[in-house]
Amino acid sequence: MNKEERFVTAITPKSEDFSRWYTEIIRRAELADYAPMKGMMVIRPYGYAIWENIQRLLDNRIKETGHTNAYFPLFIPESLLQKETEHLEGFSPEVAWVTHGGEEELEERLAVRPTSEAIIGNMYSKWIKSWRDLPVLINQWANIVRWEKVTRPFLRTTEFLWQEGHTAHETSEEAEKETLMILDLYKEFVETELAIPVISGRKTARERFAGALETYAIEALMSDGKALQMGTSHNLGQHFSKVFNIRFEDRDQKLQYVWQTSWGVSTRLVGSVIMSHGDDSGLKFPPRIAPVQIVIIPISLGNWKQEVLPTAQALEQGLKKEGWRVKLDAREEFSPGWKFSEYEMRGIPLRIEIGPRDIKNNQAVVVRRDTMAKESISLDSLQAKIPQILSDIQDSMLAKARKFQAENTSEVDNYQDFKSVLESKRGFLKTFWCGNQDCEDKIKEETMATIRVVPLEQEEKGKCVLCQADAGQWVFFARAY
Amino acid sequence: MNKEERFVTAITPKSEDFSRWYTEIIRRAELADYAPMKGMMVIRPYGYAIWENIQRLLDNRIKETGHTNAYFPLFIPESLLQKETEHLEGFSPEVAWVTHGGEEELEERLAVRPTSEAIIGNMYSKWIKSWRDLPVLINQWANIVRWEKVTRPFLRTTEFLWQEGHTAHETSEEAEKETLMILDLYKEFVETELAIPVISGRKTARERFAGALETYAIEALMSDGKALQMGTSHNLGQHFSKVFNIRFEDRDQKLQYVWQTSWGVSTRLVGSVIMSHGDDSGLKFPPRIAPVQIVIIPISLGNWKQEVLPTAQALEQGLKKEGWRVKLDAREEFSPGWKFSEYEMRGIPLRIEIGPRDIKNNQAVVVRRDTMAKESISLDSLQAKIPQILSDIQDSMLAKARKFQAENTSEVDNYQDFKSVLESKRGFLKTFWCGNQDCEDKIKEETMATIRVVPLEQEEKGKCVLCQADAGQWVFFARAY
Repeated sequence: MNKEERFVTAITPKSEDFSRWYTEIIRRAELADYAPMKGMMVIRPYGYAIWENIQRLLDNRIKETGHTNAYFPLFIPESLLQKETEHLEGFSPEVAWVTHGGEEELEERLAVRPTSEAIIGNMYSKWIKSWRDLPVLINQWANIVRWEKVTRPFLRTTEFLWQEGHTAHETSEEAEKETLMILDLYKEFVETELAIPVISGRKTARERFAGALETYAIEALMSDGKALQMGTSHNLGQHFSKVFNIRFEDRDQKLQYVWQTSWGVSTRLVGSVIMSHGDDSGLKFPPRIAPVQIVIIPISLGNWKQEVLPTAQALEQGLKKEGWRVKLDAREEFSPGWKFSEYEMRGIPLRIEIGPRDIKNNQAVVVRRDTMAKESISLDSLQAKIPQILSDIQDSMLAKARKFQAENTSEVDNYQDFKSVLESKRGFLKTFWCGNQDCEDKIKEETMATIRVVPLEQEEKGKCVLCQADAGQWVFFARAY
Repeated sequence: MNKEERFVTAITPKSEDFSRWYTEIIRRAELADYAPMKGMMVIRPYGYAIWENIQRLLDNRIKETGHTNAYFPLFIPESLLQKETEHLEGFSPEVAWVTHGGEEELEERLAVRPTSEAIIGNMYSKWIKSWRDLPVLINQWANIVRWEKVTRPFLRTTEFLWQEGHTAHETSEEAEKETLMILDLYKEFVETELAIPVISGRKTARERFAGALETYAIEALMSDGKALQMGTSHNLGQHFSKVFNIRFEDRDQKLQYVWQTSWGVSTRLVGSVIMSHGDDSGLKFPPRIAPVQIVIIPISLGNWKQEVLPTAQALEQGLKKEGWRVKLDAREEFSPGWKFSEYEMRGIPLRIEIGPRDIKNNQAVVVRRDTMAKESISLDSLQAKIPQILSDIQDSMLAKARKFQAENTSEVDNYQDFKSVLESKRGFLKTFWCGNQDCEDKIKEETMATIRVVPLEQEEKGKCVLCQADAGQWVFFARAY
């Protein structure tokens, strides 16, 4: 089977079967592949490049706000996890256990980290002695293992990659401020770099991180109308500091427990980019995180190697020099037409076609992946115009996603409408909730919809969508991944 | 206990007890700390920053030579590891095994990767079909677990971080070329960025990677005269491709097994930097990988907050703008003198002191960590001179390490001298070896010295240092970490 045959195979259109499209495009575009272990995936170079771009752009923001990176161990002794029962209960069904090292059975089982609060708490109790040591602002980029029953590439896998920030502060106010600062940082990051608009707010007690005082989250709407949790920021209060005995001498020489936060985003973000922007022709990457931003395709007609190729190569070099991620595909075993659909499928934001006739006219044909709009641009001004074109693509992808989100956010004030919207268009349901977990549970049971966030700005009051009691808060419901 | 008390505690001088100095300086300078699990460490922000610099500088080189990054799973099913018996035997005493996921016992044990040839070979057999798919040039940055009995921070720990390149090629020649290209790349990288000179060459069969055709390595001499393996590059031949059935249709439509390589360096490099350059006063980092390159210390005399601080802050901003990693320490709870020794201990390459008198003279005092040389430089030209000063420090640290290596490399031609050099100054022993493993084994048994490398350039001939038989090759022996 040659490459051509392998790639021209049609992908299920996104509009026809979203779920099949998602898994097919991931393999066809070589973003990821299934590993020979249940629930695990291999992130292939084209998919990993997106994660690397996410890492670089987010890491800059994390460092600019005063955090530094560190690395804590993969394994956590069972006794350390057991110190915190609420946390352990939340995670224990998902923990992978190491029981043997070499030929020997271990005296104590080791958990492969499902998150690092316990091991980091243990270390912080050694490092933090005085208010002068605070705040501690540490982040780590690491792999995480959670034994998931139902998995889907990038969205939910037994092993995934993430960053987890863990901070310790002198006061409750500082910890809350950090938690909300990170929530805003995540929102700005996802909207600016991934071109995905999000809603943000507080999680209900039911959806809170095991052991947290408050969990905040950003949530986005995927193009099938289901919500995806994109990142979380937890105010841990003094819960873990009391369990792990993280105390400091305050400014009045009194011993106090520190106030902590933790926060993270994961390789799930790669899945969100695929789902938010793709279409029937395949992937569509925002330029700022696209593995390749521009593909140059010389049109192999006539004497193209002499007439076209040198110009294409000069353009490639010129664009690379300015820092763009560029690919020139001059392979002869594939036709230009095949390459067009191949790189559309792979989601490259901008295509530049140059043929013998273009050379005569001193121009190139530029095709945007987002709108498929074609434009002939003079070779003299092409390079200078690239920044504006890519910036336009980024902006219009975000605008399109914003429009989609607005169109798929429905305000409802009664349970009948609530259920009928969920059956028809899904999306976010903006409504009132009395704050009673019984209503929340019943709605989930009957409709599979959960409260994604309770927005921080609460202006109006209304009646609970289910029980019609007076409700002090409005919330966003949705079916979620 | 306040910070001051904690830091001024003396470190064992390097010249007195190298091994104690090494473990003490690592904790005192907050590079790493012991985790509550045997053999595992936490890499703290100051240590991790060195690894981040190593990653960035090496990743650039790996990408410039055509490789891309990917991510393969942490867990490898036992049956997959068992496919390759030689490889498995090499690693099985060191494997950590996962036996339970959540509450359930797994049907098959999963190895926590001790290296990734098996899982990557399995994936390559799915991905590679034709010569058009070759070469495959993939690297991954990952954590690795090997159940080590004797551990030491950075040098040998149960979990460590590394990069592992895994490539597949059409021909044996290409694989050998790749293996040697990477060996040279590692050598250039370590010498340029870490300022550590290395010797390079082939490993003997005894020291070869389990399953490899040839293993090449770079080795450096630490300042206690022991050798440290800094990186390895393996030509795997068709060994793994036959086991994992990685075949491609060649240009004549015949099925062939691919030719493979693998290569890696790890967080051990951080240990090598500490050991190579440090002195009795503490760490000494080469500017190119130093977490902080320049520390500015305002001298807190008289009206310093008005007279000195603004200049120090302007200098900090100016240097940051030019991309230097700068720290201004204006804390009042610590004296300038305490800060001087603190940052000497922490190995910051350059210190700039500015006091009220300096301001009057429009100058600053600049102190190099490598030579401790002091110089007054006009504030007008200071910023412009920084690149040259840091570059000089980098160069002279490499020159010093080269001189040390030359002085501690002894040519010997008989076993008596061999043993007496090992008892006195240690270092590299350049000598002849007949190629017989019995001689190699006996020397190791009697002297603890092993053949570090067989250099690739073999000009002379001589007599084996042990058996005095005609020897076709000269080699480097040393006691090693």
